[in-house]
Amino acid sequence: MVNTLPKIGFCGLGAMGGGMARNLAKVGFPVAGYDLYTPLVDKLVAVGGTAAASPAAAAANCDFMILMVVNDVQADSVLFTPETGAIAAMPKGSTVILCSTTPPSYLKKLRAHIDETRPDLKLLDCPVSGGSIRAAAGTLSIFSSGPEEDLDNAKVVLEAMAEPLYRIPGGISMGSVAKMLHQHQAATNIIMASEAMGLAAVAGLNTKDAYDAICKSIGRSWMFENRGPHMLANDYLTVHSAVSIILKDNTIVTTHAKSIGFPLVLENTAEQLYITGTHNGLTKEDDAGLVRLYMPTSSPDLVGNLTTSSVKEGKAGITIDTVIDLMAGVHLASTRECMAFAKFVDVDLSLLFDIVTKGAGASNMFDIAAPQIIKAGSFSLKTVKETPEVLANLKVAVQKATEIGQSVPMAAAALQQIYFDLRE
Amino acid sequence: MVNTLPKIGFCGLGAMGGGMARNLAKVGFPVAGYDLYTPLVDKLVAVGGTAAASPAAAAANCDFMILMVVNDVQADSVLFTPETGAIAAMPKGSTVILCSTTPPSYLKKLRAHIDETRPDLKLLDCPVSGGSIRAAAGTLSIFSSGPEEDLDNAKVVLEAMAEPLYRIPGGISMGSVAKMLHQHQAATNIIMASEAMGLAAVAGLNTKDAYDAICKSIGRSWMFENRGPHMLANDYLTVHSAVSIILKDNTIVTTHAKSIGFPLVLENTAEQLYITGTHNGLTKEDDAGLVRLYMPTSSPDLVGNLTTSSVKEGKAGITIDTVIDLMAGVHLASTRECMAFAKFVDVDLSLLFDIVTKGAGASNMFDIAAPQIIKAGSFSLKTVKETPEVLANLKVAVQKATEIGQSVPMAAAALQQIYFDLRE
Repeated sequence: MVNTLPKIGFCGLGAMGGGMARNLAKVGFPVAGYDLYTPLVDKLVAVGGTAAASPAAAAANCDFMILMVVNDVQADSVLFTPETGAIAAMPKGSTVILCSTTPPSYLKKLRAHIDETRPDLKLLDCPVSGGSIRAAAGTLSIFSSGPEEDLDNAKVVLEAMAEPLYRIPGGISMGSVAKMLHQHQAATNIIMASEAMGLAAVAGLNTKDAYDAICKSIGRSWMFENRGPHMLANDYLTVHSAVSIILKDNTIVTTHAKSIGFPLVLENTAEQLYITGTHNGLTKEDDAGLVRLYMPTSSPDLVGNLTTSSVKEGKAGITIDTVIDLMAGVHLASTRECMAFAKFVDVDLSLLFDIVTKGAGASNMFDIAAPQIIKAGSFSLKTVKETPEVLANLKVAVQKATEIGQSVPMAAAALQQIYFDLRE
Repeated sequence: MVNTLPKIGFCGLGAMGGGMARNLAKVGFPVAGYDLYTPLVDKLVAVGGTAAASPAAAAANCDFMILMVVNDVQADSVLFTPETGAIAAMPKGSTVILCSTTPPSYLKKLRAHIDETRPDLKLLDCPVSGGSIRAAAGTLSIFSSGPEEDLDNAKVVLEAMAEPLYRIPGGISMGSVAKMLHQHQAATNIIMASEAMGLAAVAGLNTKDAYDAICKSIGRSWMFENRGPHMLANDYLTVHSAVSIILKDNTIVTTHAKSIGFPLVLENTAEQLYITGTHNGLTKEDDAGLVRLYMPTSSPDLVGNLTTSSVKEGKAGITIDTVIDLMAGVHLASTRECMAFAKFVDVDLSLLFDIVTKGAGASNMFDIAAPQIIKAGSFSLKTVKETPEVLANLKVAVQKATEIGQSVPMAAAALQQIYFDLRE
């Protein structure tokens, strides 16, 4: 039987790209894979792919050239290096699908760069979210953008990798903009998970109980649910997602916002904490390990060690509810910031709502507040019914943390930002 | 009588460069000046300079080519534009003196760029500080760096522009690094002046009394003393230094710190406030006008209107001492951040102390804390005798601001950072 599926070239076979490429091979696509590290290529060959000795070789007969490299610098290298680069080798009219997370501004530069020599080639902007397990299962969130006709053309390939597959209106770069907005929630929620568990631990609470209760509360986030178990296990060398990755993606958000003059107080506060983590030598460890920034340096494993504590009310009257209040307050301020940013960069708010709530940036507070913001068409928290109560609780939670000298920078920044937002 | 002073080419005759060039002409240097805006050239001619029709014309017979343009992009344009650029026209062995504030990384790129065609030319890195009045008086702080012999050579020119003239060891780019460190203090202190006056006003205090008392207190900064009168006069359209300028210089600091993985929590908090200012349309107004970010939007002139208030104890028990405590706490945290950053980028701490205390970045808390940090050789605030008292007062001040819902983001960030720094 003749294989009628389009032919795929694939560059970048790491934790994400390797799973994506193997999934495509397993479901029947002819996949020619390239990676600098050849054992990764062997893993693709083991499930039916073929080995390519260079990006040019991977590209030579492809209909779609998929890139899942680390960043824009690697993408340029894979595409444009003389002799070995993919672009010069690609068949007439074939398509580059960039799945790497890159700055939105890069996409337009890339289109222009390709146009210099190969205006016949198509380019799609298709960053992803979801982690290595969903990559291997073909169920990534993919934020696709580009000319409608070219997206239609690539549908069979994108659908084989994605669930859900989003189509972001506005042409090339808007997929990257949508990914950036989702990243805003992911980035603020990741560090907030550490700030919350850090407060619970330093107050002396049973951290396992706190984890369980928070997961069922208004303070819950997808990231907290996901990172919490690593913290309880003091398990930071098993790396699901390194500090370097969230810092890299976060920098794309803050850099883009600065370039268009938009303030992102919470996102920048988060970024300083990621940089503090790298400055303290945690770059290559799992980002759940950032909880150690919130621990006494003398007992970095405190979160995991307190799972048997019987304390129900910790220092300064801090309870699990205090921790929940801290999280709900930060997530509320962060939701507002994300929605206002989305409006500023022209992404449809209802589409963004769908992306975040189904993605790793989800939080219960986002579920509650975002629809009210969308409905009101205003980015003041005055429009969110729960604001007065969440604010009052956040204020008390920050004061209790302050009483015990526990640093809660995200919560403090959120409190200030809410006051700024609500001033008459 | 023959003029034996070296011949100067000067590009960029704006508020700073115009004063510098006219001062050089007045004290006897032959100065050929160029600016896109010809009325600025006329002002130089009126005091004895000559008009140049292009950077190349200004450079043609010079011993020293001084650049005081807005940024690195303008510097590249002035130096390298085909036909009109200065570099190709410069006499053999002459010297480029870059006085603009640019990223430290730019200096090394610039040296390499010049070397491509004119390795015979010298380059000195000489950013300045001090404002337009000192520029015109020839009494700018100049942070000079480059090969020792070339600095010796340029001494007569640099001394005519500077008082004090600093020589920063370590070669090209270190002048820009020193300027960046001074900028860290200037940037955190400028916004803190607004945060302090904002709190005084919203609490209902007599703002003139607050200004006078703060200037004599531990909370004083050079910037507060300088910007305060603009605020009391509600005088933001008389622009001594625009929000755009501090944002530009601030971005150089934060970008450099990020590029080397160094956290600067207070500086980044300040930057978000500057971006919030530009986002709110204040870009071209005086940076003292940022005080309006701290006012009710319904009464933006509150600071100036309260100079006749008879209130000694405002809302939530806020007094002038509360405002002083807020400032002292922020300046303490900011001093620590600046000194730790200086150590990381290899600038001599005693030299930095001299620069800051004699410059616009000065504050009474810096005077007190920096010598203790230098002496201890440690960047923990544990080494500063006053920390417990300043911290306790800052905590109370932030709580009082919180009681009235007044946003104090710098103070909140400082409090969190001090707790982080002091954790065991």
